[in-house]
Amino acid sequence: MARNFDLIVVGGGSGGLAGAFRAAGHGARVAMLEPGALGGTCVNAGCVPKKAMWLAAEVARKLTMAGDLGFATETCALDWPEFIAHRQRYINNIHESYRRRLDEAGIAVLPMRGRLTGPGTVECEDGVSLSASRLLIATGGHAVKPPIAGAELGGTSDDFFHWTAPPDELAIVGGGYVAVELAGVMQALGSRVSMFVRGPRLLEAFDQELCDRLAEDYRHAGVRLHFDCEVESVEGEGDRRRVRGGGADQGTFDTVLFATGRAPNTDGLGLDAAGVDTDTRGRILVDDRHSTSAAGVYAVGDVTTDPALTPVAIAAARRLMERLYGGRSDTLDLSQVPTVVFTHPPLGKVGLTEAEARESHDDVEVYTTGFRPMLHSLAESQQRSLFKLVCVGSERRVVGLHLLGDAADEILQGFAVAIKRGITLDDLHDTVAIHPTSAEEVVLLR
Amino acid sequence: MARNFDLIVVGGGSGGLAGAFRAAGHGARVAMLEPGALGGTCVNAGCVPKKAMWLAAEVARKLTMAGDLGFATETCALDWPEFIAHRQRYINNIHESYRRRLDEAGIAVLPMRGRLTGPGTVECEDGVSLSASRLLIATGGHAVKPPIAGAELGGTSDDFFHWTAPPDELAIVGGGYVAVELAGVMQALGSRVSMFVRGPRLLEAFDQELCDRLAEDYRHAGVRLHFDCEVESVEGEGDRRRVRGGGADQGTFDTVLFATGRAPNTDGLGLDAAGVDTDTRGRILVDDRHSTSAAGVYAVGDVTTDPALTPVAIAAARRLMERLYGGRSDTLDLSQVPTVVFTHPPLGKVGLTEAEARESHDDVEVYTTGFRPMLHSLAESQQRSLFKLVCVGSERRVVGLHLLGDAADEILQGFAVAIKRGITLDDLHDTVAIHPTSAEEVVLLR
Repeated sequence: MARNFDLIVVGGGSGGLAGAFRAAGHGARVAMLEPGALGGTCVNAGCVPKKAMWLAAEVARKLTMAGDLGFATETCALDWPEFIAHRQRYINNIHESYRRRLDEAGIAVLPMRGRLTGPGTVECEDGVSLSASRLLIATGGHAVKPPIAGAELGGTSDDFFHWTAPPDELAIVGGGYVAVELAGVMQALGSRVSMFVRGPRLLEAFDQELCDRLAEDYRHAGVRLHFDCEVESVEGEGDRRRVRGGGADQGTFDTVLFATGRAPNTDGLGLDAAGVDTDTRGRILVDDRHSTSAAGVYAVGDVTTDPALTPVAIAAARRLMERLYGGRSDTLDLSQVPTVVFTHPPLGKVGLTEAEARESHDDVEVYTTGFRPMLHSLAESQQRSLFKLVCVGSERRVVGLHLLGDAADEILQGFAVAIKRGITLDDLHDTVAIHPTSAEEVVLLR
Repeated sequence: MARNFDLIVVGGGSGGLAGAFRAAGHGARVAMLEPGALGGTCVNAGCVPKKAMWLAAEVARKLTMAGDLGFATETCALDWPEFIAHRQRYINNIHESYRRRLDEAGIAVLPMRGRLTGPGTVECEDGVSLSASRLLIATGGHAVKPPIAGAELGGTSDDFFHWTAPPDELAIVGGGYVAVELAGVMQALGSRVSMFVRGPRLLEAFDQELCDRLAEDYRHAGVRLHFDCEVESVEGEGDRRRVRGGGADQGTFDTVLFATGRAPNTDGLGLDAAGVDTDTRGRILVDDRHSTSAAGVYAVGDVTTDPALTPVAIAAARRLMERLYGGRSDTLDLSQVPTVVFTHPPLGKVGLTEAEARESHDDVEVYTTGFRPMLHSLAESQQRSLFKLVCVGSERRVVGLHLLGDAADEILQGFAVAIKRGITLDDLHDTVAIHPTSAEEVVLLR
């Protein structure tokens, strides 16, 4: 195998793969190092298996509603091993697709770690040294537990994806997107879930009003929410785990999961040797061209200071390679990145929250609609959707859209295109509604 | 009761109600005549009960998939009387909401027909004559059967909404949106459906490629599709109905439904007396300000030449009243109206089809993606989504978007806003994807 390349990509997750494919597509000779499964967190322990579990949970919720609608169903249990076999088959297909595409693109894949020994050199785990004029670091991140007594008695989202049966009583520590997603899935799939949240609310980066509504939905579904309750320790009692938090005994659980944040994968990466600077949390500092402090060394994805979202890593990697090998010069605009949390119902946002808009603008107008989707009305379910539009200025320019409700995950994308393009409330009103849908409520807001 | 008003609205469906409310909101004294149920076709025999049945059918399909995913479900039958009670409760709530809002707005509601006796006068069925400086005709349309022998032995969509049990074997005559919607619902809810389509394909106003794919999905679901097969007669044989079409005996069915078009409700409306012109199909001719040929007489909705869509009637009525009473001067732009057909999966479009674009532009580029949504992959279902983007010019301006697949109904609205605002393929690419969703496939098209 050659030891000199145009580009060495360290990490074969979403960002690394997207970069490698795009560079190779422009004729670059590319090597990629990945010691684990292709696809990184997204494919193996993130977006993909998470969405699969969310879909199963949504089906479970539909089965319950079906009985309320007049279908002769009984409460239906999920055969976990069968479903997980489906999930794994799906993931295996992605792996195979990546392997085939890497072969076709002539990308040299080394199934091992690499360490930067200088700006243009990477030493592989087997001792072989590779060189390239450009390096892309895309090693991603990993879940971290808090430094408390008994933390080793709890798992993380990585462990969740190895479960073959649901725990009866599950404690989830955290209030961010991983915590709320796992809590929602497991409550729908039959666990009794308790959430221990350090702060006063769920999902601090999302609109408060929608998150309060989501908390109500979760309580209604049976999730026990403990706010302002920092977990101090976990103790083993036979097969059970006793949780102490907020200065009190919170009882025992079958399983404890920590969803308390993620950290960049930079250990042993040789960032110092290569002169790559990091921030106080250890994340690689990049500019808007995804250059690091070392010449010829680039970084994308969760290992950097960018928003930790798969599509951001992919878009950044592709745009970077277009600049390096495709003759393009513009950068990726990472303002107004839409994102969805796969809760039940899903929650999405693009742009500013109401609070953020009021901090940065004088003339903010907010339009809100709450409604019960038809299916929930028919089934006499109490779940309501809550949509919020944030506008500024006399022309009522749309700066934020926040959606909580069934189909929010699919509704948001098109509006994100429109909002990024620059629209006003009048542009929404000038678009004819699609009836009857949830999405039409956005263009009917007034 | 007063006999002189600022505005008399003839017809209390979606368009008439929207116009009456908006006019009254601006201080106009409004009378409304409606002999039937408030809400017209949409609420009583169209969008709303149709969507309710579609939702039930989607749940039925989910129940089948649930078994394939690992849920311990059995084939589940729908208790029609129970479901229809839910559906009717939903509709009753809409009626009550309308009645309350009409009361609050001070709109005089007369539960009877009216006949125009001149530009500013309407004679009610009870002989009382009302006058107003402005009249709005919004009487809607009705389903029509073809002039064939035995047509009286078949029903229309109106009859469908009175069913309390599904027929075992159902023949549907037609290939338009009503036909495909009813066929999809009934096949999913347990009937064996045969469709008799006069032309060579389904849904002639929609993109051919997507409609061909939909036809495949329908065949896979068990629908028997007969194209180029005009029905010539229906004969009774005891409880059964024998259908002859395309020159051959097509066998017998429990029920025959005609979904063969709709006609405007203008009988006895006095259009001639008022000087209101109609086209060859009897539809009221309106200009882009929704004026008819008679001064002071306006018309919106299915009784006119506008696209027969509830949101078009509503938007037209509101904009009209904004002009008449709200000081606004602009017209409603009815190009690029998005619309969705509630098939299984749903089908949506906005703007030009590929064929339309190629007729009107020299430099057309089409981007297509076919994919299996994750839920279908997990369940090993063969249903695939097919999305098509139509661009023109060197800047690749988006002139059409066509979506077939789960969630197409909810995905389309936001993209319709963006496309109406004017976007290029680059604008789609500059928007970060939301992963994993179906909607993201639109911004990833290349």
